[in-house]
Amino acid sequence: MRIDIVTVLPELLESPFAASILKRAQDKGLVEVHLHNLRDWTTDNYKSVDDYQYGGGAGMVMTPEPIQRCFEDLMKDREYDEVIYLTPDGKTFNQKIANQLSLKGNILMLCGHYKGVDQRIRDKYISLEISVGDFVLSGGELAAAIVADAIIRLIPGVLNDETSALEDSFQDNLLAPPVYTRPAVWEGMEVPEVLLSGDFKKIDEWRESQALKRTKERRPDLLED
Amino acid sequence: MRIDIVTVLPELLESPFAASILKRAQDKGLVEVHLHNLRDWTTDNYKSVDDYQYGGGAGMVMTPEPIQRCFEDLMKDREYDEVIYLTPDGKTFNQKIANQLSLKGNILMLCGHYKGVDQRIRDKYISLEISVGDFVLSGGELAAAIVADAIIRLIPGVLNDETSALEDSFQDNLLAPPVYTRPAVWEGMEVPEVLLSGDFKKIDEWRESQALKRTKERRPDLLED
Repeated sequence: MRIDIVTVLPELLESPFAASILKRAQDKGLVEVHLHNLRDWTTDNYKSVDDYQYGGGAGMVMTPEPIQRCFEDLMKDREYDEVIYLTPDGKTFNQKIANQLSLKGNILMLCGHYKGVDQRIRDKYISLEISVGDFVLSGGELAAAIVADAIIRLIPGVLNDETSALEDSFQDNLLAPPVYTRPAVWEGMEVPEVLLSGDFKKIDEWRESQALKRTKERRPDLLED
Repeated sequence: MRIDIVTVLPELLESPFAASILKRAQDKGLVEVHLHNLRDWTTDNYKSVDDYQYGGGAGMVMTPEPIQRCFEDLMKDREYDEVIYLTPDGKTFNQKIANQLSLKGNILMLCGHYKGVDQRIRDKYISLEISVGDFVLSGGELAAAIVADAIIRLIPGVLNDETSALEDSFQDNLLAPPVYTRPAVWEGMEVPEVLLSGDFKKIDEWRESQALKRTKERRPDLLED
């Protein structure tokens, strides 16, 4: 898989992709992540990527031309399976979308900034608009990092133990059950006895019932799908 | 405001807090962000922060002791208004929670990792469990960055134009209307005429109707609250 991220703040994204699982996935050759500074496709001395919005009002809008030049350059070299725009008014990101995207070959992401991108760029180029949640960020960069992280860890071979991803919250519409490790007694609190029993059938049943209980209490909406 | 983030991967979070608005907010003295490496509170030679889970199964669990030592050290110096654990089974983060948190003084965040933290740490210390969405990340670090970003930009003085944050998506349960900037015609696509009219009453009405239309089409659930 190859992920290209177009941003006005590539420096913001450096450390998330240089650490931990995202780094290991790249080192193993399982994914390539390329950060592109949108300002490299500007033509004026100020390297402007934004302008006042038509109709007035606070906040600048990302101008279409540098994005167009950048996209056309990237699209000369390869076809993209999805061109994603990260924006609060996009489709709410979830594990199902992450699963689908993890099967793609080339993904291009545009990080929104300021008041957003000129609507005509969305109309012309964007195949998928994603919001990571019902909140506003100072830019789409962290949203792009989140989408990339959620996708990349699903690529076979990225996690050391593949069963680990399948048992995560959301893969089966259930939240994960509580987990415990040593010591068996900590601050007067004991690990549930069943987990110490060695009876794996009972343990599985307990985990399933705890997952269901937690989901009912915290996220009954997940059970309605 | 002061935000302390406890993580096994402080290096992952370096660049997001060293760029853009999050950096400016710190430079202006409006917020302090401190990253703490959980391994600094371990006592063994391997600096272990995780262990096998009771009951067996894939994935490690974060052990309670280093977290306890770290938390107790930090709590000696100040009281925390919220102790947040980033976890997929937490309360879904949204703009309302961001607004509430932006009014707090001291916030402590614990980034979940591996299979999660020992349940007893959650029972003893955590006042608020937050999920940034229905997807699984390789760790809580990017989730913590997102929560911090969403909060920090709401602190008065952080954004240059305060009205800008109030007009964002979600602040009024509506998605933002489309935005346009120069050129007036681009790739044969024209900016909607009303935005060029100079009639601000009409422009406001257009924006409101577009915001409502977009919300109805994309996120009718927002209108039900």
